[in-house]
Amino acid sequence: MQSVTLKVQGMSCNHCVNSIEGAVKQLGANAKVDLSAGTVTVEFNESNITLDSIKEAIEEQGYDVIN
Amino acid sequence: MQSVTLKVQGMSCNHCVNSIEGAVKQLGANAKVDLSAGTVTVEFNESNITLDSIKEAIEEQGYDVIN
Repeated sequence: MQSVTLKVQGMSCNHCVNSIEGAVKQLGANAKVDLSAGTVTVEFNESNITLDSIKEAIEEQGYDVIN
Repeated sequence: MQSVTLKVQGMSCNHCVNSIEGAVKQLGANAKVDLSAGTVTVEFNESNITLDSIKEAIEEQGYDVIN
């Protein structure tokens, strides 16, 4: 398992939290959004999922992943 | 038909727009959110629906109706 904290722009409310955490969960990974910090911490098994696919899933929800 | 523009706090993104407009539509009224102005303009038939019930529906979604 790998844990990475991403800086994500555009998250403003609990709906945003749910849409991001839900999208990442659909990939089979876990995400925890910190709204006030503007971060998403993702935990994933790097033998099954790439970090890039997680970033894409977040961007598809309409947010900008900074790193 | 009556049209009233309410000042509403806490609306931050398109998810908020959808949740408010959807909740008001469920009552049989129409709502149009202006995110940058922080307002919700509601149109309703005052013989069927009260303005108070619309305000309650918006507050139940987690927002504060100021007037």
